[in-house]
Amino acid sequence: MSVRNAFYAQSGGVTAVINTSACGVIETAKQYPDHIGKVYAGRNGILGALQEELIDTSLESIESIAGLRHTPGGAFGSCRYKLASPEDKPEEYQRLINIFKAHDIGYFFYNGGGDSMDTAHKISLFSQSRGYDISCIGIPKTVDNDLPATDSCPGFGSVAKYIATSVKEASRDVESMHETSTKVFIMEVMGRHAGWITAAAALAMEEKSDPPHMLLFPEIDFCRETFLARVDQIVKKQGFCVIVASEGTHYSDKTFLSASRSTDAFGHVQLGGTAPILARMIKESLGYRYHWAVVDYLQRAARHMASAVDVEQAYAVGAAAVEYAVQGKSGIMSTIIRGDDAVYTWSIGEVALEKVANVEVSLPRHFISEDGLHITEECRRYLEPLIVGENYPPFKHGVPVHTRLKKVYVEKQLPLFTV
Amino acid sequence: MSVRNAFYAQSGGVTAVINTSACGVIETAKQYPDHIGKVYAGRNGILGALQEELIDTSLESIESIAGLRHTPGGAFGSCRYKLASPEDKPEEYQRLINIFKAHDIGYFFYNGGGDSMDTAHKISLFSQSRGYDISCIGIPKTVDNDLPATDSCPGFGSVAKYIATSVKEASRDVESMHETSTKVFIMEVMGRHAGWITAAAALAMEEKSDPPHMLLFPEIDFCRETFLARVDQIVKKQGFCVIVASEGTHYSDKTFLSASRSTDAFGHVQLGGTAPILARMIKESLGYRYHWAVVDYLQRAARHMASAVDVEQAYAVGAAAVEYAVQGKSGIMSTIIRGDDAVYTWSIGEVALEKVANVEVSLPRHFISEDGLHITEECRRYLEPLIVGENYPPFKHGVPVHTRLKKVYVEKQLPLFTV
Repeated sequence: MSVRNAFYAQSGGVTAVINTSACGVIETAKQYPDHIGKVYAGRNGILGALQEELIDTSLESIESIAGLRHTPGGAFGSCRYKLASPEDKPEEYQRLINIFKAHDIGYFFYNGGGDSMDTAHKISLFSQSRGYDISCIGIPKTVDNDLPATDSCPGFGSVAKYIATSVKEASRDVESMHETSTKVFIMEVMGRHAGWITAAAALAMEEKSDPPHMLLFPEIDFCRETFLARVDQIVKKQGFCVIVASEGTHYSDKTFLSASRSTDAFGHVQLGGTAPILARMIKESLGYRYHWAVVDYLQRAARHMASAVDVEQAYAVGAAAVEYAVQGKSGIMSTIIRGDDAVYTWSIGEVALEKVANVEVSLPRHFISEDGLHITEECRRYLEPLIVGENYPPFKHGVPVHTRLKKVYVEKQLPLFTV
Repeated sequence: MSVRNAFYAQSGGVTAVINTSACGVIETAKQYPDHIGKVYAGRNGILGALQEELIDTSLESIESIAGLRHTPGGAFGSCRYKLASPEDKPEEYQRLINIFKAHDIGYFFYNGGGDSMDTAHKISLFSQSRGYDISCIGIPKTVDNDLPATDSCPGFGSVAKYIATSVKEASRDVESMHETSTKVFIMEVMGRHAGWITAAAALAMEEKSDPPHMLLFPEIDFCRETFLARVDQIVKKQGFCVIVASEGTHYSDKTFLSASRSTDAFGHVQLGGTAPILARMIKESLGYRYHWAVVDYLQRAARHMASAVDVEQAYAVGAAAVEYAVQGKSGIMSTIIRGDDAVYTWSIGEVALEKVANVEVSLPRHFISEDGLHITEECRRYLEPLIVGENYPPFKHGVPVHTRLKKVYVEKQLPLFTV
């Protein structure tokens, strides 16, 4: 068996545990010296391959690589860059093959969401069509939990734990003071098209009447009248109302409550500001005193509140990707499979990339309560195991320690390439 | 020595550790059975005394009281209710004396900020003038860290740790993706008149060039041109810019930025929020892609990220208040005194309430860098010891455990009183 190098890259929005998957890849690759030579990490995802910016991870210390386990963000840089189809931009695909050849890359690990799995799938097909032997394996990552064929996505459990914890804490604050102060508190969370993060806020509840009292999902059309009537009802009954709203909350005509003209490289509309819009509605129609929070990047970077099971799974999907590759597999993504037992168990599986590419899984209707404003017990049973266990990073001078890599680049072999 | 009851109440904005002070009061009072009978907690601060809504803490289990140590918010309810002067509303003061007499209250513990110390001071003076024997002791509490005569205020260390941790984590996220995504990230924090919380964000930095790159303090007039030029300079030099802005950021005419009314692409008026206003400025003038976060109540409720030293101090100021009272002292607030050693040490002291009442301490100018946009080394040396050490709450089902009190009310002895 010949020894060949591996390429690893991080793609799309980063998470609190995507570096944990990187750690899983790099540490596991070292266990297969008969198959894998060096692991080169692409600077800024696939752009690193296109531009021949390859970080030699073998030059990092063992401690630095181990430190990836508790470092949020993407240590090698991530990107929002979507490859066109090989028909539209064959030069990009040919460039990748050239880069792979120049650096003897026989393993391609791509750590991302649905768009990224599409990229991995296209590269896999193109390489095959050109007779270039490479094992392409996807590693799931997304806070949105919207990938098919995997029970959950690494990154989601940690944001879910952070959101449930945060809304539970903030609700105690609102509850303490509602009689003479704020009556309505709105927290806006991520999840453009899928309400998984919004749903996770319900894990803050111990009793049925506990906050959050209302959840606004992107799966459910927003109706101003129903919303305001329900807020009023809750305030009159419980004294205060805590609402968790997805950034993707939209009217029946699909207009987001907070629309913006700017779009990202994938053509997604950039959002932010649902909470203040809802606050204004409440103020104008009901007159209640309000506060609102938009946690934005904090939620997906909150490694300090990571879910222990999420950290383990993020590592495992990275490690498994290497093992699948070493076994000669290609064109697959590692997945998480939930056991059938009453007590939560999980194992690692695989799925063909073509089944994952560009598919977004929303919250199923039976996970949302009949009135569309909360979750069902079935949803709670699904979510709860994903946030169990704490996995704290080390701290120094009162703040978490994050690893800093040296990032030594491999010498370029090819001419410059402009994307 | 006669045994008399104690009244304890929580006042003003709550914190992650005000209940820790309550725990300190209640547990310490039990150690003085020859002096203190029962501790009655006012429901919603001083309103609980005026309305004779007294919670008998002796009926709570030892575990429930111990659980206050890790429960954010105000377990007995807090209020934003400021007593008028005895000259303007003598009936309120007389009512308090009547309540104290009816329940044999010889100790008055008031846990709050500057306004609350004013209340405690007025009650102390009025009681004396009426010949009612009561020991009035203030217990400091405020996330704003703006009380005089105490080195720091319980509640501040924890919000400082949370903000430094959060901005450090979010900055790793922004850093990972800035080449193809967000260039400017703005995080809005509390502190309308004092920039202590904003300053604490700088504790996220390990190196001089680390984020946050710019801090906007309420102590410094905001200048749009200077701000935009600096953002542009930082983005051009470092690739991205992380800004932490106080909610109290204001123009030289003292108008808050959050009071600005701008309209979005659809002509909707955008609600306040300093962060979105700054984001819009940047987008319009520099064209950089931005994200913003407003953490609001999350920051002052974040018990999961409490500073260990803050938790200890919050307990200690509560415990000391009881000890001072038992020693026959009155008209004082317990304080935190910093030792002179190079290594941080602290002890508990006392100050006359009249010296604390209604005084707000801003960030001194020498704690702010010359350009007004960062902190000095002296400020860092002051702040850092306040966030050291972690003190995690227990978790169950993936979320923090908070105590729930039974809240059994003492039987009312007096006619109703309307505030």
